[in-house]
Amino acid sequence: MTGNSIFRPAEETATCRWSEVPVLAYKETDSAPFREVTRQVLFEGGPLACQLRYFEVAPGGHTTLERHAHVHGVMVLRGHGHCLVGDRILSLATQDLVYIPALIWHQFRAAAEVPLGFLCMVNTERDRPELPSPIELAALRADPAIAAFIQT
Amino acid sequence: MTGNSIFRPAEETATCRWSEVPVLAYKETDSAPFREVTRQVLFEGGPLACQLRYFEVAPGGHTTLERHAHVHGVMVLRGHGHCLVGDRILSLATQDLVYIPALIWHQFRAAAEVPLGFLCMVNTERDRPELPSPIELAALRADPAIAAFIQT
Repeated sequence: MTGNSIFRPAEETATCRWSEVPVLAYKETDSAPFREVTRQVLFEGGPLACQLRYFEVAPGGHTTLERHAHVHGVMVLRGHGHCLVGDRILSLATQDLVYIPALIWHQFRAAAEVPLGFLCMVNTERDRPELPSPIELAALRADPAIAAFIQT
Repeated sequence: MTGNSIFRPAEETATCRWSEVPVLAYKETDSAPFREVTRQVLFEGGPLACQLRYFEVAPGGHTTLERHAHVHGVMVLRGHGHCLVGDRILSLATQDLVYIPALIWHQFRAAAEVPLGFLCMVNTERDRPELPSPIELAALRADPAIAAFIQT
């Protein structure tokens, strides 16, 4: 629990760091593949039914390719990159909004030279993400653009 | 209902406008005092238990002085200003985080020369805001700094 202090000023707007907001590992286990991602929890707990997190993918890094029943509301706060949402590959820049529907494969990738930082709103009560099986990966790779994107 | 399209790119990052996101009146009734505030709903509905809204207070404008049982998670996205949270007056700049606890009087004011734009996360299920009674206003005004802030 990060806590919800009344005022946590931005410490560095260029790098998205806040007072009292620790920079955490993206995932607490190493059971899922990802690369160079940090997590900061901006609001959570108490009477709030959602969390607001800030994720930052370092240049060349990526989040886990996964799906789950819960949905994400995403706003890019910093940098550039792309995301896979189902069969779409979106080019992302600052302030773009992305909605990840339920049970849709998705992954975020930063550009090679700049990070991709984004806010992500999610229900506090939610299911655990699912990783693709070998058969599901093969189905995703059947689309050459997706195969090039997921690189696995 | 704004809808949650998968991709709604930023149209103008400097002025915080998005594709498919209409710029709405701050409140749908004129029963509460406010000045020069717009509202854009970025994510809402479906399985999401919260809404994410973007409010923008024009230079010199202000939101309603109010309180309610639901809480707010706020991040400044643009400009400068101040907010009253209980007995505190906070100076706000880009990316600052503000948590408005339950049943605390609060109001946002933009600086005289620049707007104050902020994201606000709130539970979808929530109570209606309450305005201060004359007795409550007098109690707020007993603090000279708060009296100067609320200007009513």
